[in-house]
Amino acid sequence: MEGEDDTVLRSRCRAIPKLPTFPDLDSSLDGDCDQEQHQQGGGDNHITSNGKIEVEHVISKKLQLKRKAEFLKSDLMRQFDSQVNDFMDSLIEESASLEPAPVPAVFSPPLSDKERSKLRHFRPPHGQGKQFVSRRSLLDELFEVNHIRTIYHMFIALLILFILSTLVVDFIDEGRLVLHFDLLVYAFGQLPLVVCTWICMFLSVLLVPYTLFHLWSQTQSGSNRHPKLCSLLFGSVFLLYQALGVGFLPTYVVVTNSFPPASCFIIILEQVRLMMKAHSFVRENVPRVLTWAKDKTSPSPVVPQVSQYLYFLFAPTLIYRDKYPRNPVIRWGYVATKLLQVLGCMFYAYYVFVRLCIPQFHSISLQLFDLRAMVLCVFNSILPGVLVLFLGFFAFLHCWLNAFAEMLRFADRMFYKDWWNSTSFANYYRTWNVVVHDWLYYYVYRDLLWMSQKRCRPAAMLFVFTVSAVVHEYILAVCFGFFYPVLFCLFMCFGMMFNFILHDQRKGPIWNIIMWTSLFLGQGVIICLYSQEWYAQRYCPLKEPSFLELMKPRSWSCQKLMSDSDRL
Amino acid sequence: MEGEDDTVLRSRCRAIPKLPTFPDLDSSLDGDCDQEQHQQGGGDNHITSNGKIEVEHVISKKLQLKRKAEFLKSDLMRQFDSQVNDFMDSLIEESASLEPAPVPAVFSPPLSDKERSKLRHFRPPHGQGKQFVSRRSLLDELFEVNHIRTIYHMFIALLILFILSTLVVDFIDEGRLVLHFDLLVYAFGQLPLVVCTWICMFLSVLLVPYTLFHLWSQTQSGSNRHPKLCSLLFGSVFLLYQALGVGFLPTYVVVTNSFPPASCFIIILEQVRLMMKAHSFVRENVPRVLTWAKDKTSPSPVVPQVSQYLYFLFAPTLIYRDKYPRNPVIRWGYVATKLLQVLGCMFYAYYVFVRLCIPQFHSISLQLFDLRAMVLCVFNSILPGVLVLFLGFFAFLHCWLNAFAEMLRFADRMFYKDWWNSTSFANYYRTWNVVVHDWLYYYVYRDLLWMSQKRCRPAAMLFVFTVSAVVHEYILAVCFGFFYPVLFCLFMCFGMMFNFILHDQRKGPIWNIIMWTSLFLGQGVIICLYSQEWYAQRYCPLKEPSFLELMKPRSWSCQKLMSDSDRL
Repeated sequence: MEGEDDTVLRSRCRAIPKLPTFPDLDSSLDGDCDQEQHQQGGGDNHITSNGKIEVEHVISKKLQLKRKAEFLKSDLMRQFDSQVNDFMDSLIEESASLEPAPVPAVFSPPLSDKERSKLRHFRPPHGQGKQFVSRRSLLDELFEVNHIRTIYHMFIALLILFILSTLVVDFIDEGRLVLHFDLLVYAFGQLPLVVCTWICMFLSVLLVPYTLFHLWSQTQSGSNRHPKLCSLLFGSVFLLYQALGVGFLPTYVVVTNSFPPASCFIIILEQVRLMMKAHSFVRENVPRVLTWAKDKTSPSPVVPQVSQYLYFLFAPTLIYRDKYPRNPVIRWGYVATKLLQVLGCMFYAYYVFVRLCIPQFHSISLQLFDLRAMVLCVFNSILPGVLVLFLGFFAFLHCWLNAFAEMLRFADRMFYKDWWNSTSFANYYRTWNVVVHDWLYYYVYRDLLWMSQKRCRPAAMLFVFTVSAVVHEYILAVCFGFFYPVLFCLFMCFGMMFNFILHDQRKGPIWNIIMWTSLFLGQGVIICLYSQEWYAQRYCPLKEPSFLELMKPRSWSCQKLMSDSDRL
Repeated sequence: MEGEDDTVLRSRCRAIPKLPTFPDLDSSLDGDCDQEQHQQGGGDNHITSNGKIEVEHVISKKLQLKRKAEFLKSDLMRQFDSQVNDFMDSLIEESASLEPAPVPAVFSPPLSDKERSKLRHFRPPHGQGKQFVSRRSLLDELFEVNHIRTIYHMFIALLILFILSTLVVDFIDEGRLVLHFDLLVYAFGQLPLVVCTWICMFLSVLLVPYTLFHLWSQTQSGSNRHPKLCSLLFGSVFLLYQALGVGFLPTYVVVTNSFPPASCFIIILEQVRLMMKAHSFVRENVPRVLTWAKDKTSPSPVVPQVSQYLYFLFAPTLIYRDKYPRNPVIRWGYVATKLLQVLGCMFYAYYVFVRLCIPQFHSISLQLFDLRAMVLCVFNSILPGVLVLFLGFFAFLHCWLNAFAEMLRFADRMFYKDWWNSTSFANYYRTWNVVVHDWLYYYVYRDLLWMSQKRCRPAAMLFVFTVSAVVHEYILAVCFGFFYPVLFCLFMCFGMMFNFILHDQRKGPIWNIIMWTSLFLGQGVIICLYSQEWYAQRYCPLKEPSFLELMKPRSWSCQKLMSDSDRL
């Protein structure tokens, strides 16, 4: 990309050839192109007094130029040829090596149709599952184009201005240079407890599902007389563990200790992540053991090593494989850059909240049913909303996942695709977070279709949507400490609607504009309503709330309370 | 660019090959890549019961694939080869055809050193002047990359939200759908008078300089005995016309009729443009006549036709040539798009002022010496400032100039370069507005150097800066109706400083960040201070102002007046 871009710029340079006949050319105001050409042509700018010699000189220069161009051309062609050759060869090899399943399969004894259809139920979805391929993240590729890197620089410039103006205002307010990040300190409070909770959670997910699976796989070896009973038993224990050990306990810790939002986010996101990882591990390996139990091609079932499971728990993917494509080396400089960028995004988000959200909502008289104020509130929340969206995407989906992928030499970096170019919400959902999308697609959507024998495709899609919306809302509800299903409603109403209106047949630029308009609007609504509710919860705490009162958004009733107090 | 981009996307597609062994693959959630591959591979997905036939089938498929790849490769190579060949040939031809000057020159009788140095003074700067080359605007090229077109779509989405929220708020306020653009109507007021003034101005610039030049050229034919006296006379008349006819009269009309800002902008910008065009016409043609008067190679001097001058007056360039590279056809669709985009930008700017500037400044208590309020004001003005900068650039330098270039089949569309990637202010000034930069470079900077015999290069640069700053400030002062040299100070202090600090040796990304930071800050300062002054002029009109009072920014003293009235 860099190369292509340079070519464009270079050809723009080349298009204004300067004549070498005027040695008094002045280039100090006229930029790089001229300078380069001067350096090249500066050597032989001399006017001889004999016209004939000049003609010969010009002709010989032209011939030189032509020879040089021809040489360059043949050189370029040779290079291009060898590159295309290598590329084609590697492509052919790769496509051959990616088809391992059919070749061994055909050497096994042919199966009856009944056996085949039975086997299909147990067959691990490797062949049809996600294929991991060594590839870079799209933003890493795009940032090599200087026009797009400039956008990144503009965001940094904005951060610098955020910091500068905050410093100056704080300096005027307090008379000295202050650098306090009370919001960050508050949001990441109770960090020791967070770390302890995380370690317990991680160790339990490392040990319990693996041990359960290991024990269960031994019950399938044939010596056991009731393999199905054992499967039922172990399955129930695993589900119970998922529900209570991973599902309930961390939430209980978070709620009883009333963790602040960011600490809460860490635990709840890790909880969801580990739950999905454990599910994937079991989902991918159980069919392998069942296949082995049918065929008995080897003396013992293929049970992954604990090190493979441990690698999977850290790897930036939610689809278990024994092996992933790996990079040869770790570029620690890259890791450091990405982690610094995560830190930068955190501070950026801090400034967005401190400078754009808090002043707007802190002093607002809560006016939910004043439509005019609501419209202005939503509109004013678009800028912070979009910034938070970009920051979250960049910090988590690009930097954080890439940093971990680099440290683990994990080579498949397609954590997202070019969601910004989406012309449909269906495509946006697929490309925004490929990691989670793949999990939902393979383990919820495809497994549902498989279970229902492909009878209810729209129902499966609806279920995937609901699962996703519920989990998103669950995370927000626990972290903010209140239940206000704005995201859920946006997701289930507009998200679903747009998913069917803005389907994949929409390709024109107008649909991309509509996608962005609704995304902007959605972010504005989310930031505006959640912020209002956040402050309503602070301003109007309930003494002995009933369940119904807890469910009811406080910003609706708090307004009345405030009006009452206004009247007093 | 599009092609390259597609290749990237296609290779991303290709990187996830789906195996054709499972005909029950379900792709409705999994996007375009899968769909394509399904269509390709859907035909021969059959599982035979005989293993051997499967092996043969797989092997034959692989061979097919390999053959297909080899064929594609050779085809690609052939195409590439012929394209490079054509490109190289045209390049060689072009570089040869661009060197016409030296070849005829060498056939003329050799000159003595003295004659040569004399001739150099009269020689038209064609050889060393701007070379017009057929090329597209950079944004037209970049918008073919979908990632960059998406940015354009995001701006449109923001405009839609501006319009929507304004409509809703107006609907609530007035109880009916209102679509009044009083600000636009006000800003473009007195349009008939504007049109009349423009027509007079244009006709005078079309007739007066051309007639003067034509008459003068006849005095140089040798029949006249005092050519130098005639030159002095005609030169003085031309300068007087430039100063009074183009310089003073339109300003007088504008000021006495107190045109509103946008109407004013039209007249004053056209005044400056026509003045620069007339200068260029005379500057380019006088040396040609003088050279002819020395050599008398043809019976009469080469005087351009009036149609050539008329074309030049409309063409989007400030450098006169008899001929420019031309396109074969006019794409009227392109013209319509560009003019619609100009209109869109005008409404965008309207919404930026109505929604982001007026609410902020209309109700503000003017607090110039309150540093805290100033910092917040500058910071809050950054968003509208940057939007106005982008809109101005896009509407004028891209859309307007391209629309006119297309209508005139003018092929050299390099009206700007990639200023957003600048790592130095020197480069930013060179690339932001190539049209004006070229005029300043060739007619101010280079001519100054030539007059001073290259003795004072920094002085020439300082002079160029000053001319540019003065003209910018003059335009703003006349249009806003007050003198408040904020832009001048930023230009002369920070612009000059940065021009020497951020010089061309700065290439790292950090300098691009600094460039953007200072650009953001500068736009914030400009919008904040000019808006304050605008409202101060409205709130605190002076009854019988002295010249000193007119020069003194009203926002400085108006604050005191308001504090006084507050105390009452």
